[in-house]
Amino acid sequence: MKAAQSFLALASREGIRACFANPGTSEMHLVAALDSAPAIRPVLCLFEGVATGAADGYGRMAQAPALTLLHLGPGLSNGLANLHNAYRAKTPIVSLVGEHATYHRANNPPLSSDIASIARPVSSWLKTVEVPNQLLDLALEAIQAARKTGPAALILPADVAWSDEELTPPTPRERREEPFDATHLEEAARLLGPRTLLLLGGRFLSAVACSAAQRIGAKTGALVLIETFPARVRREGPAAALRRLPYLSEMAASALANIDTIVLAGAAYPVAFFALPGRPTKLAPEHARVLDLAAPGSTIEGALNTLASVLQAPETEPSIVDRPARPENGGAIDPASLAQSIAATMPENAIVCDESNTAGLFCYDAAAAAPPHDWLTLTGGAIGQGLPLATGAAVACPDRRVLALEADGSALYTIQALWTQAREGLNVTNVILNNGAYAILRLEMMRAGVNELSEAANALFDLKRPAIDFCAIARGFGVPAERVETPTKLVAALERSYAASGPALIEVMIR
Amino acid sequence: MKAAQSFLALASREGIRACFANPGTSEMHLVAALDSAPAIRPVLCLFEGVATGAADGYGRMAQAPALTLLHLGPGLSNGLANLHNAYRAKTPIVSLVGEHATYHRANNPPLSSDIASIARPVSSWLKTVEVPNQLLDLALEAIQAARKTGPAALILPADVAWSDEELTPPTPRERREEPFDATHLEEAARLLGPRTLLLLGGRFLSAVACSAAQRIGAKTGALVLIETFPARVRREGPAAALRRLPYLSEMAASALANIDTIVLAGAAYPVAFFALPGRPTKLAPEHARVLDLAAPGSTIEGALNTLASVLQAPETEPSIVDRPARPENGGAIDPASLAQSIAATMPENAIVCDESNTAGLFCYDAAAAAPPHDWLTLTGGAIGQGLPLATGAAVACPDRRVLALEADGSALYTIQALWTQAREGLNVTNVILNNGAYAILRLEMMRAGVNELSEAANALFDLKRPAIDFCAIARGFGVPAERVETPTKLVAALERSYAASGPALIEVMIR
Repeated sequence: MKAAQSFLALASREGIRACFANPGTSEMHLVAALDSAPAIRPVLCLFEGVATGAADGYGRMAQAPALTLLHLGPGLSNGLANLHNAYRAKTPIVSLVGEHATYHRANNPPLSSDIASIARPVSSWLKTVEVPNQLLDLALEAIQAARKTGPAALILPADVAWSDEELTPPTPRERREEPFDATHLEEAARLLGPRTLLLLGGRFLSAVACSAAQRIGAKTGALVLIETFPARVRREGPAAALRRLPYLSEMAASALANIDTIVLAGAAYPVAFFALPGRPTKLAPEHARVLDLAAPGSTIEGALNTLASVLQAPETEPSIVDRPARPENGGAIDPASLAQSIAATMPENAIVCDESNTAGLFCYDAAAAAPPHDWLTLTGGAIGQGLPLATGAAVACPDRRVLALEADGSALYTIQALWTQAREGLNVTNVILNNGAYAILRLEMMRAGVNELSEAANALFDLKRPAIDFCAIARGFGVPAERVETPTKLVAALERSYAASGPALIEVMIR
Repeated sequence: MKAAQSFLALASREGIRACFANPGTSEMHLVAALDSAPAIRPVLCLFEGVATGAADGYGRMAQAPALTLLHLGPGLSNGLANLHNAYRAKTPIVSLVGEHATYHRANNPPLSSDIASIARPVSSWLKTVEVPNQLLDLALEAIQAARKTGPAALILPADVAWSDEELTPPTPRERREEPFDATHLEEAARLLGPRTLLLLGGRFLSAVACSAAQRIGAKTGALVLIETFPARVRREGPAAALRRLPYLSEMAASALANIDTIVLAGAAYPVAFFALPGRPTKLAPEHARVLDLAAPGSTIEGALNTLASVLQAPETEPSIVDRPARPENGGAIDPASLAQSIAATMPENAIVCDESNTAGLFCYDAAAAAPPHDWLTLTGGAIGQGLPLATGAAVACPDRRVLALEADGSALYTIQALWTQAREGLNVTNVILNNGAYAILRLEMMRAGVNELSEAANALFDLKRPAIDFCAIARGFGVPAERVETPTKLVAALERSYAASGPALIEVMIR
């Protein structure tokens, strides 16, 4: 198993510090070799969807790849939905997918499948190691690809991993940030004006990038928006107030109705999440001119900063926005009082993992006045991301509080993440928004033109028969939990969780 | 949405009676249309892996396809591991995968991915409907393919589903069983002898098929074995004692050491589950001649019956095997007393869904003396199958008791299945074998030649830190639960669950 050890030594050298694993027999030698790479923290997950979602949360916060250890085609399959989200976020991840020994593949044993076919749609880079002496070169390629373009998948047959061949690690290559392409800067500077949309996106919208964009907007009158589902936004100072393009295409189209120019800064051209009968799927007017300031997913800090300088956009005055007061009432919790409770109590430097869907709709805007924090969203729309994402973010940033805002239906996809949080003592406050329904689907059905819910639809969107007791489930996984039904109690529960160390779950009964 | 309604009308006509669903926006019109097809029972699952596993259990028992409703690439991905198991079992399933409207795909919205690439490795049939007037022809093709060869995937863009075009259903085609290929019968009859292995497999080993095979063995002296992980075996009468090829390749190779001829009846050539350093992956001697009596996965009742007649194999005398007595002791539960407890109490006509891995190793042989029953196993090795499989089997056979024998680690993959059992009032006894570990991996590591578990390995195979409380989790999902630590209490709990209706969970603490 020298090959497995050499692989992990190289991964350590290249800055990999965490391995989210749900290993199986085909990955035994990698597991055995982990002791030889003490810089890499092994984190056990009860389901591969937790491992890949955690690697996504880790990668977004650390801006460096974690490893995942997945067991052949089925293990990869279980982790695929969260790799889809990571692929959309361009998060650096190296997925190590164990495969049967090269000579065993032709036997077609029960666990065989076409791993590459499954991995390709969510991989920015994908290769299979066929012989041991390819291993380290391909591993380095995978790590570099992950850093540059997002999830990379390295398929590793068992006989390569257990080989005792001596392997020589490739020379370290210098890492350098690709300079941004300044070709369009002058043109962008000319085009920006009151009927221009400056749309921000990409891997990480830093405080510097957000501030530059806000200043550009203030100077030129351009509408500055963040894409609907950004991978990560650092929110501090006046730029924390930047808004996101609305999810509902009707609202988005109305916000963009007067736009004649779109400058894309790391974001893709704005399109509807879903097509609806008779409605447009492109959200800006058809005639609008489009200019790419940076490729989708790129880091855009440099480009925006330069653009702000070219435009001589002045520093923004620190605005004085009052942080919302703690709500003090004993009534039911609704989306507005939820948002207020979150914003009023959020600790300094929190990391919010937002999969709150309908119930959490107002939280983002409300939190603009909270202390500086990072906000991570559901980039690919594949639900079941939130709790794993929070788990990985907490591994990356042990000194910060992670707040998972989680819809009930989505939480149930990957609820096993709670166990890893308990096991690793992670500082995650899991807020489960229990409205007893796939509320988003009721909404989507209306939008799709079906105005009266059929009996079947009502049944299929319902999560109340029987009611789910999230506190019991959390305790079963070793996470302390409490249920709250009023804003006052929610605030108290949030503050209790922030003051303690380790994970907690708060089940919020939403009206 | 006439198209969606026409599709469901055709599915009803073709004998589809259940739809395991976890729908999303792209499937709205199908959900809305379900009221127009009252013959199809919609069953809501909290995770797609539950939906596909349930469709597998349903299809194995009903021998007819269920529908699954999956939400684009990520929904399919979540259901993929259990579709892998179903693909290996050749279970009839029609997976309906919702896709973006045809004209929206090019926009590459966040939930887009290459659905076909993900589906292909687990589909016996796979097509995308591009225009409404293809829908019903392709739907009929999918249903027929599912009946014949296993999981079929029909990718259905939203604008096809919501179309109001009038569609004419294709004429029903006569269904007929393919006659078996008798070419090799005479040769098989000649070859069968004391050094022959008759290996049984396929979709369904009926009582008739098992009995014929047993008689052939008695007459010719051939070794008759069932493949290691059969899709479904009906066990009644003397043939219930037929054994399965051992999982451990060392044991299997030793059982087959003297074989010089292999007659395959619906089974594939026996190979190791995993390759191990320095060990053969083909389990029979290299020189052994191989004869295919039927293609892998075929129904082999006819072939075996005819073969038994050709050989003039007499009826087997009913053997008198005593059913094991209820264990009566207050000690700890080990695999032997577990097997005894199960065999001693199993009700008439039970359906056993066996994902018990290490702890349940002796249950199958012990249950040979239990009343007639069906036994379903982990055909594809993708764990997380058991609880969903039991859920679907119970939907197919509401008058029978389903017994899920479930390893702790595997149970945690798709634990959400419990909620569907509670919601639908399904008669499932979920026996969770809690040994606080991925015990199989400890074993596999030894077999892989790593004799001393590293610190990392010990940590990654451990499920005790923190201990998982399955009873709390079950109650959270609405299923009554109890924990037992002695055989006496296990027997009492089993009998209590068999006497009641609806689901129950028994957490068995295994030594």
